Amino acid sequence: MKLLTDKIIKEGRIIGDHILKVDHFLNHQLDVPLLNAIGKAFKEIFQNESITKILTAEVSGIAIAAITAQYFDVPVVFAKKTESLNLDKETYEGNVYSYTRQRQYKFRVSKHYLPASDRVLIIDDFLAKGEAIRGLCEIVESAGATLVGAGVVIEKHFQGGGDKLRAQGLNIQALASIASMKEGTITFLH
Amino acid sequence: MKLLTDKIIKEGRIIGDHILKVDHFLNHQLDVPLLNAIGKAFKEIFQNESITKILTAEVSGIAIAAITAQYFDVPVVFAKKTESLNLDKETYEGNVYSYTRQRQYKFRVSKHYLPASDRVLIIDDFLAKGEAIRGLCEIVESAGATLVGAGVVIEKHFQGGGDKLRAQGLNIQALASIASMKEGTITFLH
Repeated sequence: MKLLTDKIIKEGRIIGDHILKVDHFLNHQLDVPLLNAIGKAFKEIFQNESITKILTAEVSGIAIAAITAQYFDVPVVFAKKTESLNLDKETYEGNVYSYTRQRQYKFRVSKHYLPASDRVLIIDDFLAKGEAIRGLCEIVESAGATLVGAGVVIEKHFQGGGDKLRAQGLNIQALASIASMKEGTITFLH
Repeated sequence: MKLLTDKIIKEGRIIGDHILKVDHFLNHQLDVPLLNAIGKAFKEIFQNESITKILTAEVSGIAIAAITAQYFDVPVVFAKKTESLNLDKETYEGNVYSYTRQRQYKFRVSKHYLPASDRVLIIDDFLAKGEAIRGLCEIVESAGATLVGAGVVIEKHFQGGGDKLRAQGLNIQALASIASMKEGTITFLH
């Protein structure tokens, strides 16, 4: 998606060989017309899949999922990371290891919002080692719902998570896929 | 806003005299057409204010702010609650006391995304004692930007935060305002 790769080149900041900061448009400040283009692109890819629900994770998946859901005309559910006093007691859980924070944590979704009849599209901002997406898959599986696929905005392909999940049969579509970020230069697969 | 008050009556859950759970459409599952109606309502209220930025706080303000920003055609910035390794070092901070969690925490916004030239509209899901909105005002003030007002989806007016902030001159507009939630019955001011 040229609009996105141009934006990454122009406004992304590379730190070391692994970290890509996209605070300027995706993770802290939100470029809303870009999010609309992202939503339309996901719709084009998954339009024949009869999606009934979009599942994402707090925090940085939420805006992307909400804007994207407009094109599918379905509700969004976002998995909660933080313990919340107000969250229902009956939840589906996904276990996720955060390499950045070096600790295990849980994604939780109330059982009310993920019936087995749902056809679920997972949406997230980044795919690196694949832990977050895997945790969301775990939730869909526990719910007995149908997992249609996952749409991610940026895949850091060189970190291997995407291909590991594809090998397990998950249809993952990344709008921008990064082959490497060596020495401050970013190379895209697409 | 009738669509919203109807939704609160039909799908909200009252716990005790203070807690209103709107997980069904606003805080866990997102009813996207409702968010669109909310965004349009905020646009109608603040349309003559030459807004250049929408400021909200993670987590539950993000979807509302992103959808609303489409009608204003401006970027969103969301204040971060969690310590993030990737957040810029130079930030504006707001100090917020959470009555639910009984602890103090900080909202942070990178200085890059809030220039003094901005005309800022704050958007949030709930207004109760007003701590979150006050913390966001603190950030706008530190940035030297112009605070145009605040749009909140649901004000729990009986908790007093809104009127305290209005007395300080803030233009707060709530789409639904709750007078009381006694004995499981919800009474609206509007």
